[in-house]
Amino acid sequence: MAEDGVLPLDKLTISDTVEEAEFSQRVLIRSILGRPDAGAGLAGQTLKVGGWVKKGREQGKGSFAFLELNDGSCPANLQLIIYADVAPLSQFTPTGTCLHVEGVLQMPPEDKQGKQSIELKVSKVLDVGTVDPAKYPLPKTRLTLEFLRDYVHLRPRTNTISAIARIRNALAYATHTFFQKHGFLYVHTPIITTSDCEGAGEMFQVTTLINDAEKLEKELIKNPPPSQEDVDLARSSVKEKGEIVAKLKSDKAGKPEITAAVAELTKAKENLSKVEERFKLKPGIPQKDGKVDYGQDFFARQAFLTVSGQLQVETFACALSSVYTFGPTFRAEHSHTSRHLAEFWMVEPEIAFADIEDDMKCAEAYVRFLCQWLLDNCLDDMEFMVEKFDKKAIERLKMVASTNFVRLSYTEAVTILEEAVSKGHKFENKVEWGIDLASEHEKYLTETKFESPVIVYNYPKGIKAFYMKVNPDKKTVAAMDVLVPKVGELIGGSQREENYEVIKERILEMGLPLEPYEWYLDLRRYGTVKHSGFGLGFERMILFATGIDNIRDVIPFPRYPGRADL
Amino acid sequence: MAEDGVLPLDKLTISDTVEEAEFSQRVLIRSILGRPDAGAGLAGQTLKVGGWVKKGREQGKGSFAFLELNDGSCPANLQLIIYADVAPLSQFTPTGTCLHVEGVLQMPPEDKQGKQSIELKVSKVLDVGTVDPAKYPLPKTRLTLEFLRDYVHLRPRTNTISAIARIRNALAYATHTFFQKHGFLYVHTPIITTSDCEGAGEMFQVTTLINDAEKLEKELIKNPPPSQEDVDLARSSVKEKGEIVAKLKSDKAGKPEITAAVAELTKAKENLSKVEERFKLKPGIPQKDGKVDYGQDFFARQAFLTVSGQLQVETFACALSSVYTFGPTFRAEHSHTSRHLAEFWMVEPEIAFADIEDDMKCAEAYVRFLCQWLLDNCLDDMEFMVEKFDKKAIERLKMVASTNFVRLSYTEAVTILEEAVSKGHKFENKVEWGIDLASEHEKYLTETKFESPVIVYNYPKGIKAFYMKVNPDKKTVAAMDVLVPKVGELIGGSQREENYEVIKERILEMGLPLEPYEWYLDLRRYGTVKHSGFGLGFERMILFATGIDNIRDVIPFPRYPGRADL
Repeated sequence: MAEDGVLPLDKLTISDTVEEAEFSQRVLIRSILGRPDAGAGLAGQTLKVGGWVKKGREQGKGSFAFLELNDGSCPANLQLIIYADVAPLSQFTPTGTCLHVEGVLQMPPEDKQGKQSIELKVSKVLDVGTVDPAKYPLPKTRLTLEFLRDYVHLRPRTNTISAIARIRNALAYATHTFFQKHGFLYVHTPIITTSDCEGAGEMFQVTTLINDAEKLEKELIKNPPPSQEDVDLARSSVKEKGEIVAKLKSDKAGKPEITAAVAELTKAKENLSKVEERFKLKPGIPQKDGKVDYGQDFFARQAFLTVSGQLQVETFACALSSVYTFGPTFRAEHSHTSRHLAEFWMVEPEIAFADIEDDMKCAEAYVRFLCQWLLDNCLDDMEFMVEKFDKKAIERLKMVASTNFVRLSYTEAVTILEEAVSKGHKFENKVEWGIDLASEHEKYLTETKFESPVIVYNYPKGIKAFYMKVNPDKKTVAAMDVLVPKVGELIGGSQREENYEVIKERILEMGLPLEPYEWYLDLRRYGTVKHSGFGLGFERMILFATGIDNIRDVIPFPRYPGRADL
Repeated sequence: MAEDGVLPLDKLTISDTVEEAEFSQRVLIRSILGRPDAGAGLAGQTLKVGGWVKKGREQGKGSFAFLELNDGSCPANLQLIIYADVAPLSQFTPTGTCLHVEGVLQMPPEDKQGKQSIELKVSKVLDVGTVDPAKYPLPKTRLTLEFLRDYVHLRPRTNTISAIARIRNALAYATHTFFQKHGFLYVHTPIITTSDCEGAGEMFQVTTLINDAEKLEKELIKNPPPSQEDVDLARSSVKEKGEIVAKLKSDKAGKPEITAAVAELTKAKENLSKVEERFKLKPGIPQKDGKVDYGQDFFARQAFLTVSGQLQVETFACALSSVYTFGPTFRAEHSHTSRHLAEFWMVEPEIAFADIEDDMKCAEAYVRFLCQWLLDNCLDDMEFMVEKFDKKAIERLKMVASTNFVRLSYTEAVTILEEAVSKGHKFENKVEWGIDLASEHEKYLTETKFESPVIVYNYPKGIKAFYMKVNPDKKTVAAMDVLVPKVGELIGGSQREENYEVIKERILEMGLPLEPYEWYLDLRRYGTVKHSGFGLGFERMILFATGIDNIRDVIPFPRYPGRADL
């Protein structure tokens, strides 16, 4: 086989031994079943495995049991065969039981070899974590993804959620690999931000004010604040002690006597300021001029959870040239759709010396790289998705990985949509130059008209953000969206306006204040550079890849209105 | 050279051409100066570069200028030589100027070749972003890191912050590479959490209540709420319309007449419920039973920013066996030290079928891998750190990469510290069995006693968290800390208590309520598994690697009390 040179390097050598995982006392099931020979060459090896029972059944009148064991390293289960003389069988068979065992790999009897690959004959049970099947919340019967959302802590044990977890992991590592390969630096943009750039309405606030107010309230109940009388008393004490000092001085009393009286006065003054301060304490959130006094909040100003790392990562692009961020972003929208989360992950590259053409090139290369990566590294999980959820999932990945994306201007896109309307195609939203393309329009372009990924560029200025580069026509901006079958918009990006005067005018034109953007303007004021970037919604990419319909199922811990479990 | 087989594979071929970066119209300076021949073999090539001027000086009575150009791809600058007939020189020389140019690579005159590697003779200026040196906030003179903290948006343009950014990037990618190599799955644990596991005192709250209250307040000013009179009026209208209907019915009026009256009544009822609802609206944060009514918050309960992803990532370890999380975490501590941030990044692996020994093995392998990675991939940046900040930085990396970590139990560690005390070593904090080791103790062990990384394990139960595995001695838990020179504690980890009864008892013992931990207990209730994990403070690792003293300088956008710029 090696002579043919067909197999990739890492699969050329099929060793007849298998190594233990370096930091846990077992062999990963993937390193047995994931071999080109599905483990056959390992027959006779003694080794340890660990995992959870997917299915167990006693056989031979209770003399032995078959257990399907899964350890999460791959979708396939390793079959265990365990005899009653090794340990009592009934504790092992319930779904969800955790087992850590030692045994010998063996090929099943010849008559079963067609459907069954290598199995492990258990010689020793090292550990067992039992399950009471009467109480286990995830019974064997087929569970809906909706049902599983009530058990986010247990759902990783299901075939579907674990397959999605492996695909998500693969896409994350592929993302880093792609950008590192191209010399991009990974920058951690802030989660807590004071740049209220997209309007506070949809931002979560980060604060310690409520907590502080509650603490103060408790404290004031325990130690009631001084009354006006207490303050008056403290004040007259200061006055009194002051008079004593004055009198002693005018009487030319002795130094020790005066010193003692001054000390008394100081003490009274200290007490007064303490009393006055506590007198001012009021329960509730601190107010100033009729508004919340954010001067007393943790960051001494109002702070939010970021909605995008773009503006901040631009500061690094305008210094280190090719950068990207990959982190969580947040929207406080009361949106209950299957496409929105309050917390989701975004990948946002930003490239200096790059125009909108470069930007589209990068977006296309990145998406195609991700698709190819899944085909190369997650085919078994993708096959599972095809079988259970979306017959076209692998086909779609292959198509995107191997297809040049169609590129057309927004104006061309509108013309195509208008033609469709004139030929009788019905859209819910009106089509005319100037509209923001609706999801149905995007799907028409990518799924019906071209059956291919499509990049639409040069959108009308009026529907896009202030930071996008104004084109010479003054009507459009150098923005682009990547549309793909199944999810529609996957990426949104643009060349950024690098001209100081133009971007300043754009901010004012949109009725935004300049002050919060001064730092952003500085990037254009000093050594400005042509630059471009885009954002990919990471969960959208997983929806696209897997064919799963609800975004709540492709993130480990979904957050949406009314729900933030764990 | 290839015959010697000495150079690593990727350096064997020194091509005589160099490729443009795929998504921007230029060659990365690293791909010129980072070659083994420092670019010499590229002499004669015409190419484009882009970057920012570090230093510029006119020469030859203004007939040409030398410009040191940096594009962030490496610490080294490419020297440009530009003649006055190409473009007016004065606009190019100020520090911070951005240039995108085309030119020909040439070796400098022979008499300068010792100190100067290849340079670019500019033939065409494609783009320039000028700087007014009188206004540029970052003058050429040496700036302190403290000064730079007031310019987080411009400081990436300095040599120091850009070197740290590259080192940070390398450590992040090394982290993913290490865990992926060992079959760990990357899991995105939630940022917003409702698991108040470490006590709300030090947690940031995430809320939309204040914003909603402010909106309501504005709305109530615009549309004042109904008065009691309005409510009474609406109520009596309902009564009146009801009486009319009753009368019509008892009078056996015609159907159309009754229908009309009923419609009137319905309208009046609807109006009443609207009026009553608005009457209830009160400005301020909604209250219920004298407390904030979190039922009206976005997630219908109190929510926080996570302090650690550990508990949540355990749900994946107890299903997919080897996992890790790498994300931002938060502490609302009013700490102004050089070692604390309100927002920082943590790496937290979690391994099923692994005990404390495996955990230590993994922690050691990971830290050594990181150090070796920097030596292999960031030597030029490390040399810069050695020159400017910490003479021992590279030495320290080499030592850690090549040294077996010392391991000793907490009890042994205390004995060693007690011996030191008895020999006259002064500690500020008292040494005795049962104390939590203070920073000075940790530094003594790793820097003075062993001059090596040290892992201390089996800490007293009383000073550690409830989830750590109780040892057979019932006095200690299977916890471990990795201590390294320069920063002290770099990693904290433990084997987790997997026994349902024991962990339940531990929760109660610590006076914590069981209810919020029910999901965590479920992991022990159903198919429990021996498992272990640890957390590495990512910024601490960067402090360790670079020798930088203040943690605010090793994260792109530092957040601490009173400050959250951008």
